[in-house]
Amino acid sequence: MAAQLFKGIIAYPITPFLPNDGTVDIPTLEKSIDRLIADDVHAIAPLGSTGESAYLTNDEWDSVAEASIKKVEKRVPVVVGISDLTTSNAVRRAQFAEKAGADAVMVLPISYWKLTEQEIFEHYAKIAKAINIPIMVYNNPATSGIDLTPTFIARMVREIDNVTMVKESTGDIQRMHTLHRLSNGDIPFYNGSNPLALEAFSAGATGWCTAAPNLISQLTIELYQATQAGELQKARDVFYKQLPVLEFILKGGLPTTIKAGLRLQGFEAGEPRSPLTPLTDAGVNDLQTLLKLVAN
Amino acid sequence: MAAQLFKGIIAYPITPFLPNDGTVDIPTLEKSIDRLIADDVHAIAPLGSTGESAYLTNDEWDSVAEASIKKVEKRVPVVVGISDLTTSNAVRRAQFAEKAGADAVMVLPISYWKLTEQEIFEHYAKIAKAINIPIMVYNNPATSGIDLTPTFIARMVREIDNVTMVKESTGDIQRMHTLHRLSNGDIPFYNGSNPLALEAFSAGATGWCTAAPNLISQLTIELYQATQAGELQKARDVFYKQLPVLEFILKGGLPTTIKAGLRLQGFEAGEPRSPLTPLTDAGVNDLQTLLKLVAN
Amino acid sequence: MAAQLFKGIIAYPITPFLPNDGTVDIPTLEKSIDRLIADDVHAIAPLGSTGESAYLTNDEWDSVAEASIKKVEKRVPVVVGISDLTTSNAVRRAQFAEKAGADAVMVLPISYWKLTEQEIFEHYAKIAKAINIPIMVYNNPATSGIDLTPTFIARMVREIDNVTMVKESTGDIQRMHTLHRLSNGDIPFYNGSNPLALEAFSAGATGWCTAAPNLISQLTIELYQATQAGELQKARDVFYKQLPVLEFILKGGLPTTIKAGLRLQGFEAGEPRSPLTPLTDAGVNDLQTLLKLVAN
Amino acid sequence: MAAQLFKGIIAYPITPFLPNDGTVDIPTLEKSIDRLIADDVHAIAPLGSTGESAYLTNDEWDSVAEASIKKVEKRVPVVVGISDLTTSNAVRRAQFAEKAGADAVMVLPISYWKLTEQEIFEHYAKIAKAINIPIMVYNNPATSGIDLTPTFIARMVREIDNVTMVKESTGDIQRMHTLHRLSNGDIPFYNGSNPLALEAFSAGATGWCTAAPNLISQLTIELYQATQAGELQKARDVFYKQLPVLEFILKGGLPTTIKAGLRLQGFEAGEPRSPLTPLTDAGVNDLQTLLKLVAN
Repeated sequence: MAAQLFKGIIAYPITPFLPNDGTVDIPTLEKSIDRLIADDVHAIAPLGSTGESAYLTNDEWDSVAEASIKKVEKRVPVVVGISDLTTSNAVRRAQFAEKAGADAVMVLPISYWKLTEQEIFEHYAKIAKAINIPIMVYNNPATSGIDLTPTFIARMVREIDNVTMVKESTGDIQRMHTLHRLSNGDIPFYNGSNPLALEAFSAGATGWCTAAPNLISQLTIELYQATQAGELQKARDVFYKQLPVLEFILKGGLPTTIKAGLRLQGFEAGEPRSPLTPLTDAGVNDLQTLLKLVAN
Repeated sequence: MAAQLFKGIIAYPITPFLPNDGTVDIPTLEKSIDRLIADDVHAIAPLGSTGESAYLTNDEWDSVAEASIKKVEKRVPVVVGISDLTTSNAVRRAQFAEKAGADAVMVLPISYWKLTEQEIFEHYAKIAKAINIPIMVYNNPATSGIDLTPTFIARMVREIDNVTMVKESTGDIQRMHTLHRLSNGDIPFYNGSNPLALEAFSAGATGWCTAAPNLISQLTIELYQATQAGELQKARDVFYKQLPVLEFILKGGLPTTIKAGLRLQGFEAGEPRSPLTPLTDAGVNDLQTLLKLVAN
Repeated sequence: MAAQLFKGIIAYPITPFLPNDGTVDIPTLEKSIDRLIADDVHAIAPLGSTGESAYLTNDEWDSVAEASIKKVEKRVPVVVGISDLTTSNAVRRAQFAEKAGADAVMVLPISYWKLTEQEIFEHYAKIAKAINIPIMVYNNPATSGIDLTPTFIARMVREIDNVTMVKESTGDIQRMHTLHRLSNGDIPFYNGSNPLALEAFSAGATGWCTAAPNLISQLTIELYQATQAGELQKARDVFYKQLPVLEFILKGGLPTTIKAGLRLQGFEAGEPRSPLTPLTDAGVNDLQTLLKLVAN
Repeated sequence: MAAQLFKGIIAYPITPFLPNDGTVDIPTLEKSIDRLIADDVHAIAPLGSTGESAYLTNDEWDSVAEASIKKVEKRVPVVVGISDLTTSNAVRRAQFAEKAGADAVMVLPISYWKLTEQEIFEHYAKIAKAINIPIMVYNNPATSGIDLTPTFIARMVREIDNVTMVKESTGDIQRMHTLHRLSNGDIPFYNGSNPLALEAFSAGATGWCTAAPNLISQLTIELYQATQAGELQKARDVFYKQLPVLEFILKGGLPTTIKAGLRLQGFEAGEPRSPLTPLTDAGVNDLQTLLKLVAN
């Protein structure tokens, strides 16, 4: 079952762009994936928010999906973000990911127009019907503009085959409580709000979907291990240690801050794509200070 | 000046799709534009929210832009929505629209990621630099997820050549007051919130950007004329008469409800594109009742 | 009928306190009422938010109610704010006001605890049953913490005798539209949000409940008269002229700013009661500048 | 130090009213306090939200404060809620509580008018100057309408003697993170949001201010003990077991639901004071079901 496959630290790679023409830099993408796996993260999630999936053309998206899955080489499970504005292209991407070897797909209901629950349900149902790998429902109203209630999510898990996992990024711990109550603890939920990592694990989250391992992989893994071992004081210490970094990357935008942080660590992945702009000099200085603090 | 060009009722055509394969139906698009102009609207705004611009491929977008401008044939001014997720494609679309003969372009800062004001400013500046026709800044956080404050908008009007008009769709009349105060009444503002039409004109709006003329063109024009003539009681009467329709199309989603209403009026424009779904039967009945009421 | 009684500018006096011991200064209260009536406001509303009603002891409240009604001497109608945390004391105050000669009472559902609609309904019903003068329902969630929907308000007007008028202070013009629609225009509504004055009159408000006449009575009356005469351009001019003052007193808190403004105009009414503090020196300077601008 | 005094489960008694005339029932109040202490709660907090403090006259408030402190007889520490609308009466209550033997006072900045930070600061400073026992700052915008940021709270702790503890009831775990960060973990914070109990202890809360022990004292204490012992799985189990009750009392209002629950447990404490109304029959049935479930 997918929930047994995906647990712990689920890491989001960036999508690197070449400095000269802004095209996708596949070799650097591959290195960034190797780096995460070498750091012992438990799963890889390409083409998420951090991967600037929304800003890629279809051709670019396909090449990143294919290269990422191939590079992981089944060392850890892979969940691919396949969200798109139209249902037809989301279906196409889901099928592409499955064929390329993904273990699961992640679906955020992005849409220009607010969708009714029935429209969202049909969107997921059409994607689910088109593939044979599990779907992780992804709720993140801050980027998608659409808020999926725990009650509606639980209904989709019950009624749509293949919809089996939930990534919650609202940062509202009560959503996780409600998912737990609505399913007697049976729906595996994953936390997507970095500054909620400690409490989400306390509440029983199966995993943490995060871009933070690009910069501070060891601390994220230590937090997971401490909560699993019941070492609450240690978990608290390691959480408060990394919290300033987690807050910084959340506030500054993940592609922007992660790419700046990678550069500070000597890993050049280019700039985020316009309209996003590189982190300001002041921001880079702040991030450098924060990264030095946690390195001790 | 653009503000003199655009005033009164600025009408948004839908983008019709063929029932068999869902592709864009250009001949019906052309008829829908003729219909609006025959009804005496004061300007045409293709590829806005109502036009499902967000759900079109680049090729589709280009063909709709070109056909719309050509069909209007300079009978009324045209402002084309050129918003896109990446700055580079927004620039491309703006240039395409200018070349095709648009009188102005409308730009909503849509973005997956929340943008800083500096990023938004640069997005607009790059588009403005690439064209020689005016830009209407479009603020609609409900669809774009990004809220442009009046202070920031006024700054863009001052500092970026070609940025000369503002479409405000928050429904917050105080935004219009602030734009008035920040410019001593010099920045022309347009109302994009249908149920605010009466009060926006009272507050001095130059025009009303609306999809309502597809269904009730005469009432929208009467409201404009009454407020211009200082006939406040008549304006109030005609506004309260059409308000139930305005609230219905806002709540039900413009592409969905306008296409359903057009069908009720014998004008077949197909269905909205998935994930959007056609209006439910109950909704169609309600809309029919509302349209009959205003027809008397 | 009450709605015929109350129309136009309904002015809120402050409650003056003596500088030496902070007790209520009845003679100055009486002068402030005379001043408002001499300026031709259409009604007086003592013991509203501006009157710091919430900060008075029961004895103080009684003396202000009695003195205010007596001083008005039926020259204009009087509506007295009788809101209190417990139903029993609200009933007591309503009966006191009626006996003292009030034409109506105004009731805001203040409560420490959020109330259910049934609790609010019973609160109003008990007050209404205890008196024979009309009740103006007052909705102001920003101060009361309780938001009465237009649907619920319309139900109270239908079902509770004596509940006949509505003061809406949310600043949301759509609430007024809904009240209009739910009653075919039969429920008289009054605007309590100063920066919405122009648009509320455009939408058909019967009156404007405001503390502004303490400082700029003529402008408030001119706005009312222009909208009644259908002189929309004049209404707009006089509204934009006074808007900076309206925004200032809203943002700075009515007791604080109105008392500061009265002092600038040579009318000494003391300070607001702690925890409220007098307007800062910078604030006084800003207010002086604004008042000079509108005096021209 | 106060923070050493107050830790664990800080229980809020209700204020019982006599069925015949609605006056305060001191003997039953005393029994309810004995009951809580017999159940091993770690501190008693009379005259909080649960105690309907806002609906008591000054005389009633004094008698409840005096009787509560006396009845506790120093068996556990006592923190008394002294909040009132005017600073002068809040000071009077704080001095009364200190004289009666309270170990600390709790202060919520209730106010009809929104207060500036400077006004709130002075309110706390005046109370602090008038007494020699510690103050627990209480933030609960849902009832007070005023939101104290962690930054502002931390400033008050630094700058005002006697202000030494923080009760946070927003339910936003990030506030606790920020208080931790701003003070290197030195400001003791207490959780006042029942459904956040598990995560607040995970994040390092010193105590849990709650009315729940009136109905389910053992479960609240077990949760505290499990988190202190690092038994995270047990903490999670006992938390999810009691969560439905915690959510029910939060949603239904504490005085209303706690008094109904006490009656179900054979402890008659009368009804809440109007405008509050007794729990509906349907609500009583639901509560009975929930209490039976946790009793197993």
